[in-house]
This record gives sequence, C-alpha cells and structure tokens, in this order.
Amino acid sequence: MPSDASSTAPTRFAFLGPEGTFAEAALGMLGASAQGSGRPESSVAAALAGVRAGEYDAALVPMENSVEGSVPATMDGLVSGDPLVITREVFLDVAFVLAVRPGTTAAGIRTVASHPHALAQCRGRIAALLPDADVVVAASTADAARRVAAGEWDAAVCAPIAASRYRLDALDTDLADHPGAVTRFVLAARPGPLPSPTGADKTTVTVVVPDRTGALLDLLAEFAVRGISLTRIESRPTRERLGVYSFSIDCEGHVADRRVGDALAALHRLCAEVRFLGSYPRADAQPAKPVPERAGDAAFTEAEAWLARIREGSAA
Amino acid sequence: MPSDASSTAPTRFAFLGPEGTFAEAALGMLGASAQGSGRPESSVAAALAGVRAGEYDAALVPMENSVEGSVPATMDGLVSGDPLVITREVFLDVAFVLAVRPGTTAAGIRTVASHPHALAQCRGRIAALLPDADVVVAASTADAARRVAAGEWDAAVCAPIAASRYRLDALDTDLADHPGAVTRFVLAARPGPLPSPTGADKTTVTVVVPDRTGALLDLLAEFAVRGISLTRIESRPTRERLGVYSFSIDCEGHVADRRVGDALAALHRLCAEVRFLGSYPRADAQPAKPVPERAGDAAFTEAEAWLARIREGSAA
Amino acid sequence: MPSDASSTAPTRFAFLGPEGTFAEAALGMLGASAQGSGRPESSVAAALAGVRAGEYDAALVPMENSVEGSVPATMDGLVSGDPLVITREVFLDVAFVLAVRPGTTAAGIRTVASHPHALAQCRGRIAALLPDADVVVAASTADAARRVAAGEWDAAVCAPIAASRYRLDALDTDLADHPGAVTRFVLAARPGPLPSPTGADKTTVTVVVPDRTGALLDLLAEFAVRGISLTRIESRPTRERLGVYSFSIDCEGHVADRRVGDALAALHRLCAEVRFLGSYPRADAQPAKPVPERAGDAAFTEAEAWLARIREGSAA
Amino acid sequence: MPSDASSTAPTRFAFLGPEGTFAEAALGMLGASAQGSGRPESSVAAALAGVRAGEYDAALVPMENSVEGSVPATMDGLVSGDPLVITREVFLDVAFVLAVRPGTTAAGIRTVASHPHALAQCRGRIAALLPDADVVVAASTADAARRVAAGEWDAAVCAPIAASRYRLDALDTDLADHPGAVTRFVLAARPGPLPSPTGADKTTVTVVVPDRTGALLDLLAEFAVRGISLTRIESRPTRERLGVYSFSIDCEGHVADRRVGDALAALHRLCAEVRFLGSYPRADAQPAKPVPERAGDAAFTEAEAWLARIREGSAA
Repeated sequence: MPSDASSTAPTRFAFLGPEGTFAEAALGMLGASAQGSGRPESSVAAALAGVRAGEYDAALVPMENSVEGSVPATMDGLVSGDPLVITREVFLDVAFVLAVRPGTTAAGIRTVASHPHALAQCRGRIAALLPDADVVVAASTADAARRVAAGEWDAAVCAPIAASRYRLDALDTDLADHPGAVTRFVLAARPGPLPSPTGADKTTVTVVVPDRTGALLDLLAEFAVRGISLTRIESRPTRERLGVYSFSIDCEGHVADRRVGDALAALHRLCAEVRFLGSYPRADAQPAKPVPERAGDAAFTEAEAWLARIREGSAA
Repeated sequence: MPSDASSTAPTRFAFLGPEGTFAEAALGMLGASAQGSGRPESSVAAALAGVRAGEYDAALVPMENSVEGSVPATMDGLVSGDPLVITREVFLDVAFVLAVRPGTTAAGIRTVASHPHALAQCRGRIAALLPDADVVVAASTADAARRVAAGEWDAAVCAPIAASRYRLDALDTDLADHPGAVTRFVLAARPGPLPSPTGADKTTVTVVVPDRTGALLDLLAEFAVRGISLTRIESRPTRERLGVYSFSIDCEGHVADRRVGDALAALHRLCAEVRFLGSYPRADAQPAKPVPERAGDAAFTEAEAWLARIREGSAA
Repeated sequence: MPSDASSTAPTRFAFLGPEGTFAEAALGMLGASAQGSGRPESSVAAALAGVRAGEYDAALVPMENSVEGSVPATMDGLVSGDPLVITREVFLDVAFVLAVRPGTTAAGIRTVASHPHALAQCRGRIAALLPDADVVVAASTADAARRVAAGEWDAAVCAPIAASRYRLDALDTDLADHPGAVTRFVLAARPGPLPSPTGADKTTVTVVVPDRTGALLDLLAEFAVRGISLTRIESRPTRERLGVYSFSIDCEGHVADRRVGDALAALHRLCAEVRFLGSYPRADAQPAKPVPERAGDAAFTEAEAWLARIREGSAA
Repeated sequence: MPSDASSTAPTRFAFLGPEGTFAEAALGMLGASAQGSGRPESSVAAALAGVRAGEYDAALVPMENSVEGSVPATMDGLVSGDPLVITREVFLDVAFVLAVRPGTTAAGIRTVASHPHALAQCRGRIAALLPDADVVVAASTADAARRVAAGEWDAAVCAPIAASRYRLDALDTDLADHPGAVTRFVLAARPGPLPSPTGADKTTVTVVVPDRTGALLDLLAEFAVRGISLTRIESRPTRERLGVYSFSIDCEGHVADRRVGDALAALHRLCAEVRFLGSYPRADAQPAKPVPERAGDAAFTEAEAWLARIREGSAA
C-alpha cells in the first residue's frame, strides 16, 4: 500500500462520488486493505489531483469497461502530472437497476436520470421501457438516485447499492443493453513501496513510440525475447504531434521479476518516454502462465554471474 | 464508392442525427462524392444496420476522438454482423458552442442540454459557467439545439452548424475542456469495388490473436518484414473468452498494394479470425512515407517472376 | 533428374576422380537414378565446368564434411558461373584404410601418399603408425592407391573401394583421427525440371546480405514467420567488399511448397543477390518436422483466395 | 594480455611451425605485445594444448582464410577442452612463392613440396608451371623450404619469409590460384584479464542452438534488439546429435560494453551451451559502426538507475 508500512493511520481513499456509485461498491471489494475512510470526488481528475496533493492516500478510478472500452480520463489522468502508480485492481460486474420511489409505476415516470455513461449503456432498454420520459443527466448514478429519493426526478438508472441506500425500489434490473459488463477499477497512489510480488502480478506502463516503421515491433520484441505476455495494449494519440503514438501496456509479471525489470529498462533505452504505472496482483480470472525456465529469475541470476565471471577473465 | 459503378442514382447516406450534428458537418466534408441524400439515424448501430439492410448506401460514423478515444459502438458495430468496409475517412475539428435563443443571458439559463459525450467533454466549462443549471441529456447535440429553439430547454451544447440551423445565438464558443479535439469519421458501406489506390492510403483490419506469448509480435512482424507502418493499434477484449484479444489495426497502404495484400494474407494464416475493414485514401495531415524499394509492387512482381522461373527449372 | 524427362539416354555423371575414390562410392549410393556412365574429373571446378559446358548431365561433388566443415571449392563453384542446381544429396561414411601391396609391413613403409584432405584427417594416426615415412601428396586418394599398386609409393590412405580395386591389402582401417566422419555429397546439374516434392525435402540458397545491423535478422525472419526451419547456415566472405557477407542456407521444404516459395521471393526483394541452388529430397536421418497448419499449402491457398475476394470487394 | 599484468617475464608464444611459416609472419605483426619468445608447434591442436598446459602464454593460430573458409582445427580446438579466449587478431596477406635453390630452373624441378593447404590453394598454377613434377606433402610450408634448401626436394611453395630464411630464390611469386587471399590469425590464451575496450572491438562466442524452428532467430534477436551487428556467423554440426547446431559468432563490441554483456547474458539463458571466446581489438579495415544512442553504455546506466528507482518506489 502507498502509506508508510509502519503507519497505523487509516488510509484515506477517494472514489468517484457520491456514495452509492459503482466506485463505492468497488471500494468495498478491496476488503481488508480498505480499512480507512472513503471520500467521494466528482471526477477522475479531481480524485487523482487529490492524491497528488496528498489529501488522499489513493484513488479508486475506473480504467476500462468491457462495453465502453478504456476510460480516457483515467488513462490520461495517470500519465499527466506528478507520478502515480497502480497498487491494486478490482473487477466489478456492472448491473444497472431502474430505481424509483416506492409506489411509482412505469407509467408514472416522466423523467429518468443518470450519469451519461450509464445512460449510454442502457439507451436501448430505456427507450423501450420509457419511450416518453425525458432523459436527464446527473453528476453520477448515485446523485440521480438521491434526487429521485428527494422527489426531484421520477426514476434513476443506478447501481443496486445506490437504490438500497436511498430506499428506492428496483422497478427493473439488468438494464444494460449488453448485460455482463465488467468494469476494471484501479487504485492509484503516489509512488512508495511496491506491493510485494505474489506470483500472479501485472505491470502497467505507458511509452511514447518513435515515428518509424518497426518501432512498435522493436518495443514488443523486448517483451517477447524475455517470454513476457502482454494482457493489454492500446494506442493513444499524443496531443503534441501527429503520427507519434503513446501506448498503454499491461504485461504479466512484477517489476521486481528480473525479466520484467529488464524489459522495462530496455523500453527506457528505446523510447522517448516511459512511465511506470505500477506492479500489482492481478485480479482477473486468468491464471498466470508458467514462466519459461529461460525467463525465470534463476536464469537471470545465473546468466549475470556467468557474465561477471567472463568479464573478470576467470574460466567461466 | 459503395454504389454500383454504372449507377447514376444519388447515394443514400446515413449519419448520426438529427440534422445539425457534427456528423452532418462531416458529411459536408465528403465533397463531390456526397452528392446524394443524407438521412439522420439515432445511433451508430441503427446507421450500420440500415446499411446492412440496404436502406442506405453508406453510413458516416465516428471512429475515434482525440479526447475520448475510440468509439466502441463503431468498433464493435463494424465487426459484428454482415461485412462492411470503410471507403472514406474524414477528420473534423470538434468545437462546441453554448447555443441559446436570442436574448437569453447566462443568468437566465436553468437547463442546459446535450448529448452525453458532448456533456462529458465540456463538463468543466459548463460547471464554471452555469453552476446552478440542470444538465439534461438529449439524443444528440442537434436535438438539444432544436428543443432549445422550441423553448423546451434554455441552452444547448452543440455544433456551430446546429446553432445556425435553429437560429440560436452562441453565448460562448470553444466550450470543450480540452480545445482542439478532432473526431475521425469513417464512411462504412457494404463490400463492393474498393476505392482506387491513391498512393496515400490506409487499410483497416481487425484480428483475433491467439492467447500465447509472442502471438501479437508474430502478427506485427508480418507488417514489419514488408516495411509497412501501423498508424493505429488498439486491443479490444473479446467477449467470448478472457485473455483472447481482438486487435483493431490501421496500416499504411492499400490492399491492392502487393506488400499490404501479402501481409493481410499472412494474417489470415496466423489468426483465428481476420476481418478486412477497407482500404481508403488517408485524410490526415500525415504524408505517406516513401515505400522502401524492397517493398514496392515492382519488387514483388520481380520476385514472383523469379520464383516462377526457378520453380519451372529455367536458369533464373 | 537433370536430363530431359523423355530422354532414354543414359545419364553422364562427373565425379572427383579417379575411380576408387569416395566420390565414386557416393555415386554408387545414388542407386537407380545413377544408371549411366560416371567419369572422373580432377577437381570440383573441372567437374562443375563440365556440367556447365554440357559434357556431363550432373556432377557429384562434396559439399561438407563433419570434420573438415564445408568444402569451399564446391560452395564457390556452385555460386560462380552459370546457374547450377542441386538435385540430390548423399551422405557417405568416410572410412580410410592404409592400403599396401600384399606382403608390405608397417616397417617397410617409407612413403605414404594420399589426397591432402585425407592426409589432414589422418595426420595423427599416420604420424603414430609411420613416424619415419615421407608423406606424399597425390591428386586423389585413389590415385595414391593406383600408384602404390604400381610400386611407386609404399602405402596409400584411401577408401576401401580403392584398395579392393587395386588389389591392395588394408594394413590398418579407421585411420581417421576423428572416426565417424560423414561427407555430404550433392549432385549438381544444369537447371531443368525440379525433383518432385517428397514431403521431406531440402532447399539450398545463397544470398548476399546488405551491410547493416539487423539485415541477417530480417532475412531469417522471412523463414521464421512462415514456420520454416533452417538446417544449415554459413557465412562466406564476399571477395568484393569487406563487411558484405554471403550466406549459404539450407532450409526445410521444397520451393514448390507455398511457404518456401514465398520465403524465397521475400529474400529476392530483401537481398542484393539470391541464387537458388535447388530443392531435393533430404537424405539425412532427420525426419521432416510437421508443417504447422498455418504454414501449410492449404493455409496459403485459402489466404490467397480470401485476399482475392476482399480485393474484388466481395463479402469475404 | 594473458600473462599476469605485474609480470615482467617475456611472453611465450606457440605458433604453427616451423619457423618461416605465415604463422611466424603473423606473429611479427603482433608488434610490441609480441616481446617474447615464439616457439613452433606442429599443429593447431598441439599449440592449443600447450597453452592449456601452461607451457605457453598464448598460441597464434589461423581462424579463417578468405579462400579456404574457416579452419576446423581452430574452431573445434578452441571449443573443446579447458577454456581459452582470443586476445588479439591479425590479418595477414597470404602470398606464395615458388622457392628453389639458387640456380634451379623450372625445367629442373622434379619434386615440389608444401603444406596440403598451400598445395590446394596453388594447385592450378603448380599444374601449369610444373606439369610433370611430383607434388609432395610437407608438414608445413617452411618445412618444405627447409628441405629444399637441404637438397631433399627441388621446389617449395612457401611464404616469402621462408624463402629468405633458407636463402632460396623465388622462381615465381603470387602463386595462388586466387590472389589476394587473407588469413585471419587469432591469439588464444588462458582466461585472464581481458584486453581493455578500444572502441573498435570484436567479441567471439559459440552457442549450441536448440532444435526448434525460430531458435536461431530468437538468438539473433538478442543482438539486434541491442543494436549489435554480427561480423561472422557460421554453423558447425555438433557431433552429439543430428539437427543440433553449434554457431560460431563474431559480433561488434566488447563484453565490457553493456549492450554486449547483456546480449551474452541473454544467450546464456536461451541456449543449452554458450562459450565465451574473448573480446579483443578488431584488426580488419572495417571501422566500427557508431553505437546507436539507445544502445550506448550511458543509455544502459540511465535505464538501470531508472529501474532501481521505480523498484524502490521513488518517483521515477
């Protein structure tokens, strides 16, 4: 965790607020390490800024969604500004309910409110269920629920946790046009002692790739020659120059692993910019692939010892 | 163009409606080839479905945005269902205005409406300018303008084209939190004669990469060994299986070019699935890189002739 | 075979003469196809020149030896001058005997003669057995035997076939310092119909590699991306320029195989010079590796058909 | 140099004897470092064995010849047995003369003697000049000259240095069939302090490559990703198993260079066997290519420092 290991102070978390959102539900999934206070923030940018300013120890922010793809605010927010690293990841099933005050029927719904992304994911179902209702944007799914409870609007598209918190009824569940959506949240903190390797870890890095044929291939070769699989690669245009791309990459393993550390050091030599965004336990269902013998720490250690011997001129 | 070459019938276009959106502005940029009728559709899915059903000859849909990243509805919509190919691309500067009925002042705005993505891109400025206004979701930016003109809401965040179409005043311009945003639109049509190579083309393809270390590298090597630069690569999780990724790739060149055709044929051998999404003139400011001599069509033709000779047993 | 398919004329072979050498023994191993006349030549260069001039249909020449390495005269002789192709290979166990006239004892040997290469391979044993004998160079191992029979010298280091041909006794056998030597002979002919693919073939090619970092890697990538194993690779300095290397390469498969043909065509584009030196049945003990599905002819044919479809604009 | 740095004892060299051979001429080219005694040995194996046994400090042996190719006795002799490393290389122009006792004319030559390799390189010219002479093998070119001086034979094919040493006349010069031959000699010593990097160095290594498609490519990729050019690569069959090849490789740079050391350590992980055969100043006319910035020692040092920082969790 980002806080000092000897500290007993509770950890201060920022999440996308207000209370009752998916982000709070994800925060609940952090379990034991989440002992501490969670405080809602109005945007990813605000949450990350709060961590950078020292107001929070960490921020839980959405990184990608199986329907909507990556979350640009998080991708960009992690890379711009002072360094932050990911120390945890959480996968949350995203299920939307149509929350109303007890007694409200579908026919009585004139306004339905939610966060723009939730509205986008449920557009088809909302149009089918409530063809005549006005669709109103709220600052968050939970904010929509709160204002429905207050009588301002008639229905909210929100997380189950928000419905129960505001004592609303779920008139309909699984409201998403593509059910089974999963959102990956990451916990971002200021640099500090890294999470210990667990044997099933992930490392996240962003690099700026030079604009020449084969540059990306050279970069990926640095992973491949060390037997490291990538679990995600995504290009992001850099705002400075056309044709210069930034790549956001997740790979297997921990920077403390020799093969991963060596690959990252190679990227540092190859690329104009590399930003290390953390090594942390992987939370997805995918088991780690066995590390080939030639890419294990022991192979690196032996090779290094051998190199030292031949450099010294002893009989290797 | 997607229509039959001998046809003189005007082309029927779908775009994200209603009239007055950025999509219509992009449609205007298609120039001479856009002779024909444009009809608004309510969603990317609906526009692409209309093309597949033969109601339209082509649909102009947003592919990626320099702020928001790729547009999942388009990425997924092109890949799922009957084949579609991209025949054109257009880059459009995205500038939002705050459109009001003549005479309205900032103080008089109680409701501000727009499409969720526009609201997301302008959130900061809206909050600063109109801290007390309700933010309302509309089906599109133009729909917001239309309903402001109709007196339903007080202000719309929309394209300049929509403001002028509905005779609204721009109370503020450049409303986006990150000015300078560009959206890349693509024109999707049913398969048909491909656009002729122009010497500065792009080819789009999606592939499903096997889940083994180095598989992506092998795939990229097929481009690199033929001297082909990638201009975009993006991973998309496949919904079927964790760990199996789909990659959406734009590369330089036209499938009619020997090097590009050969690379695509190699992908067909390597990957579980390959979907060709078109070759079309590139519209960005980036000039095409010179093709290395060894990767030009002449080099392929000579090599093929040489191969034929040695296979026949003639003195090569 | 190099001769015209419809011809019934016996094949005329050149081998390294005179009769009684290993080359003649190798010629015997050609079996049915060797129906024809064999004529000795004094050097690899002379044998190959005779084929080029049409005096012979083919020449059986040594390509490499497990002790001495490659045979420069053959390597260079195949590459310089009019095209020749390899149509067969033969592996011959090389066992030297010490041949003497009946009645001669070790103590009575004052001169021991052989071809320089044979002398080089048996130097240790000769020095041990006959420390005081003069070592004399003969034009060939068989020539040494012939002249021993004629009483000119006392002992010859030669093949068993030469000893028996000249009615000499083998005073000692397995004379080589490194027993178990194998020589690979190849049958070189003028270009003509290639040997049919057998499913276990080899292809030989020489290429001149440009003098830049990674050039060799690019070249080898053309084999690897198509799943083709190399069975031999050897650099040869080119006489023209320092730093420019020629590589002699044997790979699995037949040029009629799609993957091999494609790889060779790619080399033709990449390299200043490529010379095809034949596809022929492999004669070593090594079974052919199974061709990965993605590299089989069917995969190429399907990929090509798919490419043709997408180029035509039909729904692939 | 191989001897102890603090030692002032003269260095003891072995070379291929006797005196008057090309090897002695090459020894002369070692210049200042050759202060010491040179002693002839009868074979490469004997010279290397003498170094291994401590009788010599170093042996000067031929590694490759631009006409004959590599010298198997040296290639194999360096790899088998206790470790030896190359500490110097020398390129020697090989020019043969036809040496006779003063007064001898071509017509008077009945026997012409030399080392088998010299005879092989001059075969054509000897046959033309002396069609009727017996060709006799000598232990070395110098031995031939010595015995011509002693009246045993009539002519020797030898180095100019041997002719003058034995007061013979050169009846003909440039006797080689391919003039302009160059032999590369290397100085092999027991492991000890390596020659200091000079900025234009070479490193020699042999590796045993696993028998799987792409194994050689993986190996070469380790050089290419670090921007290291190969100057020689040659396959040698391993005697143990068919299909398992050993590769002898020369690359640019010194093992003390970060990029070279890292590449060698990677080979150690990848390959069943790696034998380091030395880093030493390059002696050929080829200037060293500039090291790309990303492959320079500074880039490695910075990357390593960066890696240490991110592993510690400090803001990189």
